[in-house]
Amino acid sequence: MWNCPYSNNYFARYAEDFDNKDDSPSFSLLSKAALVHGITIVGGSMPERRNHQLHNTCCVFGPDGNLKAKHSKMHMFDIYSPGDISFKESDTFTAGDEPTIVDTDVGRIGIGICHDIRFPELAMLYRERGAHLICFPGAFNLSTGEALWELEQRARQFTSKSRAADNQLHVATCSPSRDSTGSYMIWGHSTVVGPSGEVIATSSHEETIVIAEIDYSTIPQQRKILPLEDQRRGDLYRLVDVHEQNP
Amino acid sequence: MWNCPYSNNYFARYAEDFDNKDDSPSFSLLSKAALVHGITIVGGSMPERRNHQLHNTCCVFGPDGNLKAKHSKMHMFDIYSPGDISFKESDTFTAGDEPTIVDTDVGRIGIGICHDIRFPELAMLYRERGAHLICFPGAFNLSTGEALWELEQRARQFTSKSRAADNQLHVATCSPSRDSTGSYMIWGHSTVVGPSGEVIATSSHEETIVIAEIDYSTIPQQRKILPLEDQRRGDLYRLVDVHEQNP
Repeated sequence: MWNCPYSNNYFARYAEDFDNKDDSPSFSLLSKAALVHGITIVGGSMPERRNHQLHNTCCVFGPDGNLKAKHSKMHMFDIYSPGDISFKESDTFTAGDEPTIVDTDVGRIGIGICHDIRFPELAMLYRERGAHLICFPGAFNLSTGEALWELEQRARQFTSKSRAADNQLHVATCSPSRDSTGSYMIWGHSTVVGPSGEVIATSSHEETIVIAEIDYSTIPQQRKILPLEDQRRGDLYRLVDVHEQNP
Repeated sequence: MWNCPYSNNYFARYAEDFDNKDDSPSFSLLSKAALVHGITIVGGSMPERRNHQLHNTCCVFGPDGNLKAKHSKMHMFDIYSPGDISFKESDTFTAGDEPTIVDTDVGRIGIGICHDIRFPELAMLYRERGAHLICFPGAFNLSTGEALWELEQRARQFTSKSRAADNQLHVATCSPSRDSTGSYMIWGHSTVVGPSGEVIATSSHEETIVIAEIDYSTIPQQRKILPLEDQRRGDLYRLVDVHEQNP
């Protein structure tokens, strides 16, 4: 949520209708940036107004400025920890019903938003569908951030590595920086993780740019060293990708 | 493998036939220790001779000294990294074909051995079957140990937490200590992880005893704070436990 405070009090006010050019300044800004610089942009997440509902949505643009994919957060962040943090995202947002995977100039990318990272099945499903990279825009808070942010990224990588498809995975997370005056204290720490679970690049909670090179050639290399995909026991357990089975 | 060197050259020599009292000194030792001390023992792993095959097997004994469950490693550790480590466990061992979950005086325990920990599906499946704790005897090496040992334990906990059953999980790992003259350099670091992914107790690579208190009351507490099991999207993905579906 890079274009508004992370608060149920603000989402509706900042929400845009991406299909309406006169009501989507943030969407238009990203589209133009992709075109001007000739790059692929996975554009964090923004509150979206669609069919009289609000969604927490990530847009992916190609170098021509066109929208290539749109992911609405599938798992609502509802947490009840009195004295620490309580938040009910589902009071305001409606969950998306589609995993999102998109072929771009920089590989096949799966998209998840924040709390989506806590569900290993989603990363496994993207792995099955051939993702090179999963991008998770997200804003963990001070409680969940220190305990889980890096762990989850590194774990999703491994979770995914153990699935039986053609590639292993990289994971990139992008978080807003921390506003110490905000009601929701953001952890920050945007990070890129490589196919051995190693942290390739990371950051603190302040505004910054993280630059990292992702080398997909490490993927077949790692698969040869430890062929986890062949070692899985599909005779004993199996992840079902519901939409793929009933498209 | 606490009763023999971890080497394909030694497994057959140290293997025991657990059903033959005259050919199972390690098995008998564990059984007697459980009885004498009136405790439950998850007895690491030992090479087992069964039906003309060798298995990497973990035995669980009750306070009466009786065998309660037996798990044979389901995923063979075959790795090919020239110059670093190459090892082919499947040259010697045959994989077990059954996930193992057992009700004991100290809770419902799922068992995995070493490389079994790399497959999140197994932990998810134990979670579905109501495990309070998963015990992973294992001997990671210097390469995989530093990179993955703690991460995998902490991750399996979360992996499991995100499954829709009644409990969350603890994970306990137990490793042999390091013998710097051995051909396989063991990482060590036996560890207990709690339901928020926190390390409750750990150790180094030397011989030691790790003592930890595991408080199952944190399980419903954690579930209330963040009801991941209700937040899963069973309409989009689903893990199939083959034996449970076709018992």
